[in-house]
Amino acid sequence: MSTSGPSPSGRSQDKGGKRARIVDAAIRVFADHGFHKATVAEVAREADVADGTIYLYFKNKDDLLASLFEERMAELNSLMSAELEQIEGALEQVRTFVRTHLRMVRERPALAQVLIIELRQSARLLKFHKAQGFASYLDILGAILARGVEEGTMRPEVDTKSIRRAIFGALDEVALSWLLGGRRFDLEKNAEQLAEFFARGLAAQAP
Amino acid sequence: MSTSGPSPSGRSQDKGGKRARIVDAAIRVFADHGFHKATVAEVAREADVADGTIYLYFKNKDDLLASLFEERMAELNSLMSAELEQIEGALEQVRTFVRTHLRMVRERPALAQVLIIELRQSARLLKFHKAQGFASYLDILGAILARGVEEGTMRPEVDTKSIRRAIFGALDEVALSWLLGGRRFDLEKNAEQLAEFFARGLAAQAP
Repeated sequence: MSTSGPSPSGRSQDKGGKRARIVDAAIRVFADHGFHKATVAEVAREADVADGTIYLYFKNKDDLLASLFEERMAELNSLMSAELEQIEGALEQVRTFVRTHLRMVRERPALAQVLIIELRQSARLLKFHKAQGFASYLDILGAILARGVEEGTMRPEVDTKSIRRAIFGALDEVALSWLLGGRRFDLEKNAEQLAEFFARGLAAQAP
Repeated sequence: MSTSGPSPSGRSQDKGGKRARIVDAAIRVFADHGFHKATVAEVAREADVADGTIYLYFKNKDDLLASLFEERMAELNSLMSAELEQIEGALEQVRTFVRTHLRMVRERPALAQVLIIELRQSARLLKFHKAQGFASYLDILGAILARGVEEGTMRPEVDTKSIRRAIFGALDEVALSWLLGGRRFDLEKNAEQLAEFFARGLAAQAP
């Protein structure tokens, strides 16, 4: 066992997938108990590792949250990009962005709970709102809008920065309501409502 | 001095406007220090009253937050309704809703900070997300959408519940970015972008 403590290289030394297991366990524990109340010991128990093992990979609970945020956002960004690659035309890509965002929430509700609710603590909000993983996600959306204006399918007056923020906020609020309300309404139907609403709002000509 | 402790009637006994002064001070203190770190003593100092005076009106810091939330939301709801009353047609009312929402944020940034950032703590989020003042605000927006569909200016497929949530979320995120980013971008220009985006997204016929 190394005595050098946690390091960024911890990831490449993930023998037996322990690190990945810890991150998965952390998502479940943070989602169930709330980040504030959750303890490293609970994460260890959920991951079926000794408490000390967690500190081989992460400095503390905050580091665990920050790491899982960046890694999972990178994953979601790749997933989103892969979905968009197959789609022709910026207006149709906006629809795909909406559907994919809400599908990711639906398929990974524990992760959504952590990203949408647990990261909203005021002390952490600023940090994560400026984090790379989140900025890249907004950039994907912004690039679609810029392309739409360029190709002429979207109105030339569309301001990429404010509209991407608006679309993200709309999706985030719908996901938040779904999570807080016990996941009772149909997120797929909501995706279709929002896709149509946004596409019409952006289109140079009514579809 | 009564020994019966805080009571809902505290408000009607607001001799010399002390209660109102405490609420105003609490908004400034919660906005500046964060609700979590803020103390009742700081609120008392800011309001220029003795610590004990606060407990004549409020049970504790949480009660102060809950009270200021309900009172200020009632005020914002009245303000919004008054603005909308003067406007003809649901599509134009949506534009007015957007402008008024962002104007209230701009004109009362400390209150916006408390409502948009400090209430987002996961433990409090559920409670306030279901609170009357918030529900009424969404109801105002929902009523505009229902009227638009009824009068035929909005698409018949518009689902009031999901679209009002989406519009609220978009406005909330734009306001959040403005507050977290040091109030540097032009919220009025953003309001025009969003007003156009939403009106087109909802319109039965392209405007």
